[in-house]
Amino acid sequence: MSNMPADNSMTELQQLDADTATATATATGRSERAKWLLTSPDPPAPWHQLFSSIKQTLLPQPKPKQPRPNRPFLFMQTLFPILKWGKNYKAAMFKNDLLAGLTLASLCIPQSIGYANLAKMDPQYGLYTSVVPPLIYAVMGSSRDIAIGPVAVVSLLLSAMISKVVDPSGDPVTYRRTVFTVTFFTGAFQTLFGVFRLGFLVDFLSHAAIVGFMGGAAIVIGLQQLKGLLGLSHFTPKTDVVSVFGAVIKALHQQGQRNRKLFWLPAMAPLFSVILSTLIVYLSKGDEHGIKIVKHFKGGLNPTSVHQLNFGGPHVGEAAKIGLICALIALTEAIAVGRSFASIKGYHLEGNKEMVAMGFMNIIGSLTSCYTATGSFSRTAVNYSAGCETVVSNIVMSITVLICLLFFTKLLYYTPLAILASIILSALPGIIDLHAAYNIWKVDKLDFMVCLGAFLGVLFGSVEIGLLVAVVISFGKIMVSSIKPSTEVLGRLPGTDLFCNIVQYPVANKISGILITRINSGTLCFANASFIRERILRSVTDENNTDESGKGRLHVLVLDMTNVTNIDTSGIHAMEELYKQLTAQGIELAVVNPRWQVITKMKAAKFVEKIGANWIFLTIGDAVDVALRLKISGLNNC
Amino acid sequence: MSNMPADNSMTELQQLDADTATATATATGRSERAKWLLTSPDPPAPWHQLFSSIKQTLLPQPKPKQPRPNRPFLFMQTLFPILKWGKNYKAAMFKNDLLAGLTLASLCIPQSIGYANLAKMDPQYGLYTSVVPPLIYAVMGSSRDIAIGPVAVVSLLLSAMISKVVDPSGDPVTYRRTVFTVTFFTGAFQTLFGVFRLGFLVDFLSHAAIVGFMGGAAIVIGLQQLKGLLGLSHFTPKTDVVSVFGAVIKALHQQGQRNRKLFWLPAMAPLFSVILSTLIVYLSKGDEHGIKIVKHFKGGLNPTSVHQLNFGGPHVGEAAKIGLICALIALTEAIAVGRSFASIKGYHLEGNKEMVAMGFMNIIGSLTSCYTATGSFSRTAVNYSAGCETVVSNIVMSITVLICLLFFTKLLYYTPLAILASIILSALPGIIDLHAAYNIWKVDKLDFMVCLGAFLGVLFGSVEIGLLVAVVISFGKIMVSSIKPSTEVLGRLPGTDLFCNIVQYPVANKISGILITRINSGTLCFANASFIRERILRSVTDENNTDESGKGRLHVLVLDMTNVTNIDTSGIHAMEELYKQLTAQGIELAVVNPRWQVITKMKAAKFVEKIGANWIFLTIGDAVDVALRLKISGLNNC
Repeated sequence: MSNMPADNSMTELQQLDADTATATATATGRSERAKWLLTSPDPPAPWHQLFSSIKQTLLPQPKPKQPRPNRPFLFMQTLFPILKWGKNYKAAMFKNDLLAGLTLASLCIPQSIGYANLAKMDPQYGLYTSVVPPLIYAVMGSSRDIAIGPVAVVSLLLSAMISKVVDPSGDPVTYRRTVFTVTFFTGAFQTLFGVFRLGFLVDFLSHAAIVGFMGGAAIVIGLQQLKGLLGLSHFTPKTDVVSVFGAVIKALHQQGQRNRKLFWLPAMAPLFSVILSTLIVYLSKGDEHGIKIVKHFKGGLNPTSVHQLNFGGPHVGEAAKIGLICALIALTEAIAVGRSFASIKGYHLEGNKEMVAMGFMNIIGSLTSCYTATGSFSRTAVNYSAGCETVVSNIVMSITVLICLLFFTKLLYYTPLAILASIILSALPGIIDLHAAYNIWKVDKLDFMVCLGAFLGVLFGSVEIGLLVAVVISFGKIMVSSIKPSTEVLGRLPGTDLFCNIVQYPVANKISGILITRINSGTLCFANASFIRERILRSVTDENNTDESGKGRLHVLVLDMTNVTNIDTSGIHAMEELYKQLTAQGIELAVVNPRWQVITKMKAAKFVEKIGANWIFLTIGDAVDVALRLKISGLNNC
Repeated sequence: MSNMPADNSMTELQQLDADTATATATATGRSERAKWLLTSPDPPAPWHQLFSSIKQTLLPQPKPKQPRPNRPFLFMQTLFPILKWGKNYKAAMFKNDLLAGLTLASLCIPQSIGYANLAKMDPQYGLYTSVVPPLIYAVMGSSRDIAIGPVAVVSLLLSAMISKVVDPSGDPVTYRRTVFTVTFFTGAFQTLFGVFRLGFLVDFLSHAAIVGFMGGAAIVIGLQQLKGLLGLSHFTPKTDVVSVFGAVIKALHQQGQRNRKLFWLPAMAPLFSVILSTLIVYLSKGDEHGIKIVKHFKGGLNPTSVHQLNFGGPHVGEAAKIGLICALIALTEAIAVGRSFASIKGYHLEGNKEMVAMGFMNIIGSLTSCYTATGSFSRTAVNYSAGCETVVSNIVMSITVLICLLFFTKLLYYTPLAILASIILSALPGIIDLHAAYNIWKVDKLDFMVCLGAFLGVLFGSVEIGLLVAVVISFGKIMVSSIKPSTEVLGRLPGTDLFCNIVQYPVANKISGILITRINSGTLCFANASFIRERILRSVTDENNTDESGKGRLHVLVLDMTNVTNIDTSGIHAMEELYKQLTAQGIELAVVNPRWQVITKMKAAKFVEKIGANWIFLTIGDAVDVALRLKISGLNNC
């Protein structure tokens, strides 16, 4: 800003008199600045812009000055980051990873069984999903903290959407085949998103939408599980044990959150309660007294499921659609989780590469009897608290789950279903992020509407309706602000040559006889051009009406176009129309700071010729200067 | 702009030394400006904004200080503008209107018969449509030049869309009833648009889309008519007469365009050729030699068609849909026509009031055997050229057509269909606006894509496809620029304290160690926040890479947020993430000129506390000032 000695108490006329000495110099500067504006080089052609935008989207950015001793190896390193950090892996790191991995497994085993139940699959499929995907991610992914496996929301999503197509209890074989097919599609879409660098698609689900969606989904899951728990209480007093376990788990969980050294307490509690309750049921023969137990539990290594994929049936289109929704939800959760912990530890995750890793792990998962896996928020937090160093903790977890599958599944025969429900329930409070919802409310009320829309949509409609509501409100917001943008009246900040919104800065002064207005829109186009033109004309009328004396009658409208980065032919038409209507009222139009695209198009449409090149200015100050001089000469002529 | 004596050849350090004397004063000004920014009053709540926006849309603006002697009469005057200008109507004006009205009628009668043929209706319905709607418009509309009646594009639209539902040759009665029902819906939608002030809906069809759509429709109509003309030539050599007529009409048309005094030549030519060709066919008994003639032509006053409206049948939903499309197309054409001539004569047309007038004229038209009427471009031009003064010329035309219906329809029995085809053909070149298409190409290449899309869509697809293509491309453009906005690097303009895009202004200089970047988007939201964050981080990396010496290593990133008028929680998150990643690289973040909504939300999200209130500036100059001082103290400490 300038050091111009402008005194607020001086009138503009006095100030102009005082400036007379430097007036010639100022005029020279002004015309030179206007020349810079009018003779700027042509902007790149739209084709060029379009192609470079497509190129930027589809192709990775070239890294400059990369030494290239071994190109294929570098490529492999990019695809498999483990080749890079594996070389520096040390025994001390493995100690930490081993501890974290074992802690993770103890939480993962009961959760996987519970989530498989939620996905209406047999319990072993949850464990399968905790074996293969973590291994694939370990060699391809870049996050050091994320814990891969089945998660509550995706499990619910799968069962809710696939149940509409195939009945899981009536035809469990077709249901399972459809689940694998959907998982394959999920992986394929995720890989495609990554390869074509469409990471921005994930951004379409805003943070607010995700918070609302997750909260709604958690409550839906919770109600389902509670129904199971309450239904059980009619049969046997033994459930008191179960609810006691629930309370114990919750208490431990909170304790663990308060004291970081006790992190293993909430992590281990589910496994302990599973073992304990299983033992109690086994010893008391509770299953004979009505306690529902897991029963079907096939042990052994992941079997292949290649032949179960079904790309020819009547449901293949539906499966692809569900796969697309799962791909987006799973990626959104995984990338949010990955980025949160990466930014705590201070490393960067490349979204597109992560998507490829997630895609591959789900494709390979779908061939080895796994359902859709992604990054789990609760387990990632446990992994981080347990002090994991690298993704090796996922490998340790995977091997532990495998050992459990090979040797200990028979022991889980007597596990009561109710304990699984309570384990799922205990994970839900972590998904309902009231704190985030409150922050959204505080910062942006409209964003909170998006959050609430997604929440209520999931709760009272369905998963798809919730997502649809969120996306529609989000994009509606963008469209409305594009179609009905605001204009604002500017005034001079005292002692400066700065012009700001007179409502935001009550200290700013309007200049009599001159209306300075700014268009608050990035684009002046068919959708908003007439609206903006009418708003400006109305503010001109208002200005003339409020000033009753007639002395301060408008002479010049200064239109600040700083914000308008693009214009189309309808926008140019509106400018021409505005100019014509102002001229009819004897008001001059001064255009300030038209941007690159805008001035180029104005020149092409001969609008610059029409209003006169001397009415285009680089700064509001220049325009006001000229306007004031015009006003004085007008008064002198009277 | 400032008068600061900055010499381009001085380094920033020298300049700073020179400024030392005024440094304290500058610092005081800077902190005061930042205080203004940080202590601005709270913006209105979003509810308030929302309600006032709805109010603005739905309710008319109160006119301040209107004298109110007779409120009901004023209201009537608003509804029926004829009460206002009628009082001042003079005999001299009527002379001009009479001449214009008769000219108009002579063009209107053959065109109406031709367009009825295009709409697959009997010829008298075209004439009916030229009687009632112009009368209604005359008492309710505000345009003084527009000529109301059937037009080519809407006639084509009706027959193309209704033919899919009802076969016009197989079941002409149902077809006619559907046409009236569609016309009723068209009128109802138009009235609703006007009453609820939804005039902006018409803007959704951009100028470019309309140019392309009209051109495509004209060619489709032309090909249809040519087929008729050529098909005829197999039967009889008499068609040579017809093609001669066509050539004559065209020649007269051009002559009329060149010489304004001969305007009546093209206007009268169609009527002359109809009379002449009818006479020839009658005398030579051409109908017995295979020339197709009009034949069915029921004379007399418009019969009522109230009982023909059909709101219960299976096609009512389809009729409403077609009515909506017709309402939009008809309004777009009428408002474009009306506004063009209003701006030539220098009066203003209020869109919403015009829509109500058009709506009423179509509703009443649908009850009196008229199909959809609107403002015709070719006839309006003739009306204007003939020197019309007021809408009375429409009344004259309407009465003339009525007289023709009452007494002369029998004479039109022998009119050859081919002459009607050639009359339609001769009106088409006026609809294909190559000049406008060329201007759009010159000004905005992407807008030309919209135009071309609509043109090709209509030509090779259908009317709906053409419109769909145009709307999708138009909105796609807005969405893409919202989702993938650009950022630009700014430099100082020599001799000033202005900072501009270094590509647009090659004269601008970058400042070593400081990167000044501006976000070119009106909103920083979920859809573009990560994209913008990554772009800025990449430009930081690029900046550090290009400077090999390491001397100019980045110290400060100055982020100009002038253009960002709104931000949501995802945008705030992205800013926090950006700040974190810059801090990790030892780079300070200076935020410049956050707008009202933005600074309020930044304060609510505690982002201001996080980066420190002293890193928020009102101008880039202030931020650069502080950054340079920081850099010097950094160098001194080394």
